[in-house]
Amino acid sequence: MLMQVMIILGSKSDTPVSEKAESILDELGVEYEIFIASAHRTPDRVKELVEASDAKVFLAIAGMSAALPGVVASHTLKPVIGVPVSGKLNMDAMLSILQMPPGIPVGTVGLDNGKNAALLACEILALTDKELEGKLREYRKRMQEKVLSDSESLASK
Amino acid sequence: MLMQVMIILGSKSDTPVSEKAESILDELGVEYEIFIASAHRTPDRVKELVEASDAKVFLAIAGMSAALPGVVASHTLKPVIGVPVSGKLNMDAMLSILQMPPGIPVGTVGLDNGKNAALLACEILALTDKELEGKLREYRKRMQEKVLSDSESLASK
Amino acid sequence: MLMQVMIILGSKSDTPVSEKAESILDELGVEYEIFIASAHRTPDRVKELVEASDAKVFLAIAGMSAALPGVVASHTLKPVIGVPVSGKLNMDAMLSILQMPPGIPVGTVGLDNGKNAALLACEILALTDKELEGKLREYRKRMQEKVLSDSESLASK
Amino acid sequence: MLMQVMIILGSKSDTPVSEKAESILDELGVEYEIFIASAHRTPDRVKELVEASDAKVFLAIAGMSAALPGVVASHTLKPVIGVPVSGKLNMDAMLSILQMPPGIPVGTVGLDNGKNAALLACEILALTDKELEGKLREYRKRMQEKVLSDSESLASK
Amino acid sequence: MLMQVMIILGSKSDTPVSEKAESILDELGVEYEIFIASAHRTPDRVKELVEASDAKVFLAIAGMSAALPGVVASHTLKPVIGVPVSGKLNMDAMLSILQMPPGIPVGTVGLDNGKNAALLACEILALTDKELEGKLREYRKRMQEKVLSDSESLASK
Amino acid sequence: MLMQVMIILGSKSDTPVSEKAESILDELGVEYEIFIASAHRTPDRVKELVEASDAKVFLAIAGMSAALPGVVASHTLKPVIGVPVSGKLNMDAMLSILQMPPGIPVGTVGLDNGKNAALLACEILALTDKELEGKLREYRKRMQEKVLSDSESLASK
Amino acid sequence: MLMQVMIILGSKSDTPVSEKAESILDELGVEYEIFIASAHRTPDRVKELVEASDAKVFLAIAGMSAALPGVVASHTLKPVIGVPVSGKLNMDAMLSILQMPPGIPVGTVGLDNGKNAALLACEILALTDKELEGKLREYRKRMQEKVLSDSESLASK
Amino acid sequence: MLMQVMIILGSKSDTPVSEKAESILDELGVEYEIFIASAHRTPDRVKELVEASDAKVFLAIAGMSAALPGVVASHTLKPVIGVPVSGKLNMDAMLSILQMPPGIPVGTVGLDNGKNAALLACEILALTDKELEGKLREYRKRMQEKVLSDSESLASK
Repeated sequence: MLMQVMIILGSKSDTPVSEKAESILDELGVEYEIFIASAHRTPDRVKELVEASDAKVFLAIAGMSAALPGVVASHTLKPVIGVPVSGKLNMDAMLSILQMPPGIPVGTVGLDNGKNAALLACEILALTDKELEGKLREYRKRMQEKVLSDSESLASK
Repeated sequence: MLMQVMIILGSKSDTPVSEKAESILDELGVEYEIFIASAHRTPDRVKELVEASDAKVFLAIAGMSAALPGVVASHTLKPVIGVPVSGKLNMDAMLSILQMPPGIPVGTVGLDNGKNAALLACEILALTDKELEGKLREYRKRMQEKVLSDSESLASK
Repeated sequence: MLMQVMIILGSKSDTPVSEKAESILDELGVEYEIFIASAHRTPDRVKELVEASDAKVFLAIAGMSAALPGVVASHTLKPVIGVPVSGKLNMDAMLSILQMPPGIPVGTVGLDNGKNAALLACEILALTDKELEGKLREYRKRMQEKVLSDSESLASK
Repeated sequence: MLMQVMIILGSKSDTPVSEKAESILDELGVEYEIFIASAHRTPDRVKELVEASDAKVFLAIAGMSAALPGVVASHTLKPVIGVPVSGKLNMDAMLSILQMPPGIPVGTVGLDNGKNAALLACEILALTDKELEGKLREYRKRMQEKVLSDSESLASK
Repeated sequence: MLMQVMIILGSKSDTPVSEKAESILDELGVEYEIFIASAHRTPDRVKELVEASDAKVFLAIAGMSAALPGVVASHTLKPVIGVPVSGKLNMDAMLSILQMPPGIPVGTVGLDNGKNAALLACEILALTDKELEGKLREYRKRMQEKVLSDSESLASK
Repeated sequence: MLMQVMIILGSKSDTPVSEKAESILDELGVEYEIFIASAHRTPDRVKELVEASDAKVFLAIAGMSAALPGVVASHTLKPVIGVPVSGKLNMDAMLSILQMPPGIPVGTVGLDNGKNAALLACEILALTDKELEGKLREYRKRMQEKVLSDSESLASK
Repeated sequence: MLMQVMIILGSKSDTPVSEKAESILDELGVEYEIFIASAHRTPDRVKELVEASDAKVFLAIAGMSAALPGVVASHTLKPVIGVPVSGKLNMDAMLSILQMPPGIPVGTVGLDNGKNAALLACEILALTDKELEGKLREYRKRMQEKVLSDSESLASK
Repeated sequence: MLMQVMIILGSKSDTPVSEKAESILDELGVEYEIFIASAHRTPDRVKELVEASDAKVFLAIAGMSAALPGVVASHTLKPVIGVPVSGKLNMDAMLSILQMPPGIPVGTVGLDNGKNAALLACEILALTDKELEGKLREYRKRMQEKVLSDSESLASK
């Protein structure tokens, strides 16, 4: 089966963040494959995985000197979404992913925000997938209803 | 003609950053429309512009308390790319755009990096546009040749 | 009954901060209404709530890319007080609320400082409410006595 | 004549920021008095000025270890708006003003944002001044028209 | 008995930091008095305490928008040592104390470093107290011996 | 003649900051000696200078990884005042000087604030020098008069 | 036996970081000696240890105002590797070690990253030690296999 | 002739920093080769250059999301020295280079500090090159004499 999204983690310790992304992709019925591959420890494998894949969108999740998203982007013309993982500093992963040089873009989401990375991937895929767009619309509606019911619980406290 | 990308600037002073994006879109032959609309000064207009548009990708460019990209994202299910604009602080626009709450994604690029915002938009559009993908491939090749020739100039200095 | 203050939270998780504000308003006898409404997840509802309200002062409490206070301010000419909520970064919410563009003011208080937000609202209301001003004076006196008695306990330790 | 706003600057070098505030107050027809008084160099004078004044709102403008807004707030129950002034660090003045201890509020606006400080003061005064509220409404409308005309100029470029 | 050092805390919660200072002063036999007095909640009391004291050195300990050391310095010509207290941000107290305007000095020590504040006070007093200077010399020697014995324990591990 | 203060600069480029200190010491009639000696380039010379000196107070001025004030403090029991010098980062020198380990104190003043370093040194010397204390009192009075006259110029503008 | 590496810790509390370095050196069979010596508390001892040693590479581990690596570098022409130790701030140790003045280099590794400090030392020693180079190659291969097996565990989850 | 050092720049704009390194290597007579190769724009070329080289030490100079030093390190077991280049943020390049994951070390020097990168490389090479060690000793002596003569000029001013 064709995988639409490839998730790459820089390290096993990034799993809690990738699980948020997987959970959204599962909920919205998007096929994905998932790998651990380090830009620094296994640079050749990152290249091979990216070049061999038919995925339309790449999600790269990494902490510290988070070179992975940029390195993925250096090997593909497909959109790459980067997720910085929190650690002792936070700013290291955020700036490493965000501040790409002009020419090789990475769309960065917030710290540990695997959920938004997956939703952004779905929005991209939904440009040519009406069913997925409908699921995204439903997802957003459920969020809004959740905010409303939270508000009512609070007011009637 | 159908506009594929909408560029929204939070303020006239963000023009130097949008010009970098426009230059890429012009070079790669992607149609776009461009507006100034402030999330704080003209919130209703932001909503109207976003909801009335058929654009497939939104580029929102803003500085300071850069709410614009997030507000654009709150009114659409299309992918939104945010560009923080430098100013007295830099971190204000970067974090305002990057740290979106789970559920409403914005793909953020680096400070003032209008070029990467446009390239990311093109990568998204190229998923269903082989001609554009070819142009992106050419663009990247030219960048690589530029690096090579820079290297040779330096070495033979 | 007329509500003098509207408290809006960006998310249910901001409740610990709003409780500090509520506690002050309860103690000083100021009527308020309270809602959860997200600038990003429920933008239309934020607009409706603000425009429908007769409140004289708005307290907007939010974390991360805290667009809520600015969005509230974009829909009203009443004074808006913003409270940044702490999280993984802190600077994100602080700068998002503080660095409003010229023209749309938000009066920001310190991180998680729901108490000061409520006191500032009371100071504004007390400009035309002598009874409330008296209560504020008493409140401040009690604080001072607390500092004095703390000092004495420490000295006689 | 009764002064409605007192502007206090910590130093003569803060004048460019106070001029932005004065310009708004002049435009909206709000009476104000203006003084230089340093929390560190002339602490007694700050106290005297604040206690002797009938102003309804205080604007305190200061840089570096910007104690002035907090010290003004310590001597009054009227609302105090603090404006951090940029310098070699920026964060010094911003955090000194923003991070007031619970009990003594200061509503802080953005770096060098004298304009928003004055507008927030006007919003507070407009709660009991219909004419001023009308002027604020006009002011905001002019801002919106400016954004629209900027947008049109850009689009027709 | 004449008190040589006055310790002022901005809040009861700063006690763990003042205890480090007290412990040094007790160990080196320096007389001190200790008070809680808030620059923001009890400004007049800070002034009274400072002006009424015969202390030769002031230690002012405060967190958040730590105005206390600067306000103490504004009321005396005696040397003032400021100690920033850690909290949600750390930089707020550090910069508030450190970045005093030219003319009113505060000698700042590191975050929560009540010990160094007391030692600096003792070094100042020891300029005219040979016995205290001797005690400081002994104290430093004990520190050096501690480093040496730690080193030996580690090496022989 | 006995030198009461030793000023040590880490580099010739720190001269603009030391000149502010010299100007105060000259104005208040305090004798000082001045040297350039780098903690990293000439460590032995720093030790020799400090140990050979009869100065009562040391002013150490340095930028970047500003080890000089701490190294001076490691060789003396006299009070050491550190002045961080601004550069590409600012935080490097500030934190290097401020965050001394418990046991070896340095009293740090604000960025480039040579003036406050000299004034703090004078306050320390004035503890046993009534004439100097009088000069400090006069100096502070002149500052206050300057603030007053600045205020009057501004008000009568 | 000749020691090839000297590890110096600024304080006993840095032991968890030095243990990571020791573990690598033990695993790769490199001889080392280890000492605690504080740049601020025992400056003379730092000099003696460094000057008396035949080590080819120095590892200096320190937190807060981490002067130790720079002071070691000031006493030797051998390569010095600095390891910043995390604490209340992190940036203090990182910048103190990293921002050395031109002329006296320290090669800094990441926060608490004793492992990389030891590996860098081994890479330097391996330039003239083929056996050690082989061990480094094996070590890196094991890391890569670990990433692969982590990836397979994750994929087959 | 055998090149002992390879300098790689991420972009032509990093030339001012590499020139500082070249100047030292020229002065100390160390052979080097120099290339521009971007980790993001020309990832394969970085790999080829590194793997084909016989250099003993690599100097990698890059700004923004400075992946280059880490990517160089991922392709070699030789020591890699990273130099962050200043830009709009500074922290981006510093943290990207410094915060390498455990296992792949990069020895980082200060911002724009090409001089120290070259000196560190020379110290490594001097471990097996007595002549180079002598030149380093002379170089350091000249620095010390420069500090002394600067000090004398200042004192006799």
